[in-house]
Amino acid sequence: MNTQAILLSDTEIELLQKEVGKKSLMGQTIESSCNELDRFIELPLEVPGHGEAGGYEHNRHKQNYTYMNLAGRLFLVTGNQVYGQFVRDLLKLYADKYLGFDFHVQKNTNPTGRLFHQILNEHCWLMFTSLAYSCVAHTMTEEEQEHIKTLLFEPMLNMFTVKYAHDFDRIHNHGIWAVAAVGICGLAIGKREYLDMSVYGLDNNNTGGFLAQISQLFAPSGYYMEGPYYHRYAIRPTCVFAEVIHRHMPEIDIYNYKDKVIGNTIQAMLATAYPNGEFPALNDASRTMSITDMGVQVAVSVYSKHYGLDDNILGMAKIQDAVWINACGLELSNAYENAVKQRDIGLPFWPSVELNEGPQGQNGAQGFLRMQDKSGDVSQLVMNYGQHGMGHGNFDTLGITFFNRGQEVLREYGFCRWVNVEPKFGGRYLDENKSYARQTIAHNIVTVDEKCQNDFNVERADSVHGLPHFFSGDDSQLIGMSAFALDHYPDCDMQRSVFMLKLSDFDTPLMVDLYRIQSESEHLYDYSHQYEGQLVRTNFSYSTFSELEPLGRENGYQHLWKVAQGALGNSALVSWLQNNTYYTWVGTSSNKNDDIIFTRTGANDPSFNLRSEPAFTLRSVESLACLRQC
Amino acid sequence: MNTQAILLSDTEIELLQKEVGKKSLMGQTIESSCNELDRFIELPLEVPGHGEAGGYEHNRHKQNYTYMNLAGRLFLVTGNQVYGQFVRDLLKLYADKYLGFDFHVQKNTNPTGRLFHQILNEHCWLMFTSLAYSCVAHTMTEEEQEHIKTLLFEPMLNMFTVKYAHDFDRIHNHGIWAVAAVGICGLAIGKREYLDMSVYGLDNNNTGGFLAQISQLFAPSGYYMEGPYYHRYAIRPTCVFAEVIHRHMPEIDIYNYKDKVIGNTIQAMLATAYPNGEFPALNDASRTMSITDMGVQVAVSVYSKHYGLDDNILGMAKIQDAVWINACGLELSNAYENAVKQRDIGLPFWPSVELNEGPQGQNGAQGFLRMQDKSGDVSQLVMNYGQHGMGHGNFDTLGITFFNRGQEVLREYGFCRWVNVEPKFGGRYLDENKSYARQTIAHNIVTVDEKCQNDFNVERADSVHGLPHFFSGDDSQLIGMSAFALDHYPDCDMQRSVFMLKLSDFDTPLMVDLYRIQSESEHLYDYSHQYEGQLVRTNFSYSTFSELEPLGRENGYQHLWKVAQGALGNSALVSWLQNNTYYTWVGTSSNKNDDIIFTRTGANDPSFNLRSEPAFTLRSVESLACLRQC
Repeated sequence: MNTQAILLSDTEIELLQKEVGKKSLMGQTIESSCNELDRFIELPLEVPGHGEAGGYEHNRHKQNYTYMNLAGRLFLVTGNQVYGQFVRDLLKLYADKYLGFDFHVQKNTNPTGRLFHQILNEHCWLMFTSLAYSCVAHTMTEEEQEHIKTLLFEPMLNMFTVKYAHDFDRIHNHGIWAVAAVGICGLAIGKREYLDMSVYGLDNNNTGGFLAQISQLFAPSGYYMEGPYYHRYAIRPTCVFAEVIHRHMPEIDIYNYKDKVIGNTIQAMLATAYPNGEFPALNDASRTMSITDMGVQVAVSVYSKHYGLDDNILGMAKIQDAVWINACGLELSNAYENAVKQRDIGLPFWPSVELNEGPQGQNGAQGFLRMQDKSGDVSQLVMNYGQHGMGHGNFDTLGITFFNRGQEVLREYGFCRWVNVEPKFGGRYLDENKSYARQTIAHNIVTVDEKCQNDFNVERADSVHGLPHFFSGDDSQLIGMSAFALDHYPDCDMQRSVFMLKLSDFDTPLMVDLYRIQSESEHLYDYSHQYEGQLVRTNFSYSTFSELEPLGRENGYQHLWKVAQGALGNSALVSWLQNNTYYTWVGTSSNKNDDIIFTRTGANDPSFNLRSEPAFTLRSVESLACLRQC
Repeated sequence: MNTQAILLSDTEIELLQKEVGKKSLMGQTIESSCNELDRFIELPLEVPGHGEAGGYEHNRHKQNYTYMNLAGRLFLVTGNQVYGQFVRDLLKLYADKYLGFDFHVQKNTNPTGRLFHQILNEHCWLMFTSLAYSCVAHTMTEEEQEHIKTLLFEPMLNMFTVKYAHDFDRIHNHGIWAVAAVGICGLAIGKREYLDMSVYGLDNNNTGGFLAQISQLFAPSGYYMEGPYYHRYAIRPTCVFAEVIHRHMPEIDIYNYKDKVIGNTIQAMLATAYPNGEFPALNDASRTMSITDMGVQVAVSVYSKHYGLDDNILGMAKIQDAVWINACGLELSNAYENAVKQRDIGLPFWPSVELNEGPQGQNGAQGFLRMQDKSGDVSQLVMNYGQHGMGHGNFDTLGITFFNRGQEVLREYGFCRWVNVEPKFGGRYLDENKSYARQTIAHNIVTVDEKCQNDFNVERADSVHGLPHFFSGDDSQLIGMSAFALDHYPDCDMQRSVFMLKLSDFDTPLMVDLYRIQSESEHLYDYSHQYEGQLVRTNFSYSTFSELEPLGRENGYQHLWKVAQGALGNSALVSWLQNNTYYTWVGTSSNKNDDIIFTRTGANDPSFNLRSEPAFTLRSVESLACLRQC
């Protein structure tokens, strides 16, 4: 069988060949990819046995598929025979060994693979290596092809669609990887039935498969409920498989499917990013994931080709400094090359946007306010008043983050895991993710009675959501958003309204934060602020403690050292220095006898899993109304 | 009087005018300087009264002289009349007000000025404004010139050479500013007697003045005993005044004076820098000062013109991305422009170097070992086995720092002051500078009996020094240095030998650290390591404490929270993650029952003056011999 590369026509290959050695985004991407690949190819081939999640074996399998995926395309684009040989040899080695590996021992609820501890990773493996195979298969003998098919690809397809059939049709980000892998592999080895199965579901009745998934996973706004971090993970197979369907099942008209859901959700994902391209760590997410991630590169390239280009998309490409090596990326690369000849492409400036949540957009929203100061710097204010993000959800409805001058100022801790740090539980989620990072007190928000919202009950949290009150992001002088959380604490109705004001006396926008809490009974309120840097000044006196104790016993409080405390007068001023910028907070409440407590994470942390970070909390008894200025 | 610009001839001005708008280093420097100046000129002129050190008034005076200095030259180079007018108007305003200001109230041992709390700053003011005056004086009437001279410059000259005569001839970095200011001002207003005084001393007998200073302040190696931070502060008036003498007293042949002491000390200063251009914070210094500082820019430009160019100097200019706006800078800019046409100018790679200390080089040395790995990354190991740095000295003889992959790994805390942070005691040194930052325990070193070296007695410390044993920095596989400290703790002879090894199994150099301590009596030894980042793994078990107490009561220990502790077996392994790099330390001692103690700064810090930073210490009783690997 004379297989053609699934995502590259002969004409496209010729066009890409012309980019080699050029200074275009595509030329640079090809060059840096070749350099990276060359270093990996120097190592001896290795197909290791079972290992820990995040351990050496796990990472080696991941590197193997990553570099086969690159090598397949670069073989066609550069004509370097070594790249083709690398894919053929390594696939053969996998085929020699694959059925000799038993399934991993199951350690959590995810089904296990033969290479990885969970099939999610084996899906990734299959998607990327199938694409690679399709690039080199025409250089293999019939016999060589059969070897790979019968001992490797077909057993995998069988595992995913028969042994784990119950998992294949699940509407979930893992499901997108599953169908993309199976569909693409089917196409690569000439078994189109797997492509059909992947697009329409095992039962061909729209309860599973790619079309069902993209119809149900995203809100009308395009927002993905697990947040940008998981969105950018899911967007890669979404875009890759969409492009495959576009080419091999044109009758579906995938890029117009469901009111352009693919383009819509790419836009929504990009619209969440901070001005420097990093994603706010909504839900338990990495603090360092940015639009330079490969998944987002693929998405931006796909968007450029199929939904059109503007200076924001070109600005994204500028930050990414790379494109997807295929026809979509080439379109973007050419457009960028032409644009920079005519004008300066600056950093992207996305408008303020409210992204609704839920299948019909009825479950609250995530708000993203942006304001540009005279110097061009963009301040961004993010508030969560939408859904709980399922198993990855933080208990932080009405929580905010604030970004200014290239840094997150009111900060999100992010997840408690050390990705790729093998001694830290294989890079997986640590206990402190639940005991601290997802707790209400870890956020920029009011915690009531030292408890977590919804009592840290995921099902309860999934059943409620925030209520949008208003969102006004267009004005040049005053923008704001407001929302309610009525179901998150017993006997407490909460409303938060946050604004950015452009005032002539201020170089940067003034942020105003109004918090209204109504309750029939007396409560303890902790209105906390996660900052970074050095405390510079307060307008009240405080005492630091000569010995440190945890602030509380549970709900995240057990992880906070109580470092200092002071009583405020009518209002409290706290100023700090973060890198080269001063920030000043002025706060007050409608109660008497409020305190400010300064804390630092690290208590009850027996394995140094937490980062040591400061925060301060306005602690108030009874009802509270706060005015905050940043 | 038709004054000529002191540091620019008409021919040079014409050459500089041709650089305007060019993409050369000089062209870029002119452009960015104009942009900065334009922003400042928009503000109304202001000559404020007395203020706090580091406060608004202080900084305004500093900005005034900084921008007058730029404006004078840029007026000649760009022809922009606004720049000339700015200098004339602002100088007039100073002259109107200057004698109306009384002297500041004296708060420390430094004499006070009328503008600043110490005359050091007033020297700076005079040097820069005299240069500016010399650029614009030809556009002023006789009357306007007289106004400036009689009410401003002459009273200042009188203050420095008569009222504060006792301070003028002091051999000290402050003294260089004094003579440079007075000499240059004398030249600017046509009173050459002040230039003579500044060069040869008030009594013209070589006990004071610039020539005596540069003869005595620097060791034969060129090292300046207060360390690179103060060196780069002193180098600016040194180079500026040298260039003035070169042009106006050519008979001195200043650049060949005393075996080229000027060039020699510039080389020594540059040779201390880490591979990224930052200076190790030897003695109490900023952690963020780098070769991009203006003083170093001036020094590199001077070096280029008068001592010659090589790729290391060009590499410095590449990092600086700017030059001094005069003929020296132009020479460098032209050379750089030609060089990059012919070849890639990489980052500078300085050879390993041992810089001796003391007037005859007899007082120990500072060692700088450098090794490059396969990827080109430079690891640098710094050991202090020289003199105590006078009032700025840390008590850290045999202390080391280690730099690798763009970051300081075994770290120097740096001084405890928040420069330009007005609420932090005007940005001046804080109490914690003495109580923590300069103490032995704050360094990467062994502290004996929880005490500071030399009992924190500056005079005692100034009277002793380290003893070099060997320094071997040339080999490609193994480099090392070794030294003794025999006088720093009673009854303790210490030797430290540190090495970097290139091993085929390792991507980066292996660091080995051997510490030998001999004593007749029993002691407690704390062998401490200041790191940054996240603890990843140990090979021994430890317990974190449920409440935190300070590790000790004095000598810096009172500022350390005791966070965790564990007993080691035969050897201890500690690995941590700093940004994206793992570091692993393996340590042992010849004693039994050693402990590892994990600490964090912040105890007894009532005003949050300290940064919160982690460290670990191998605590050992009796004699100790350690093997450390990084």
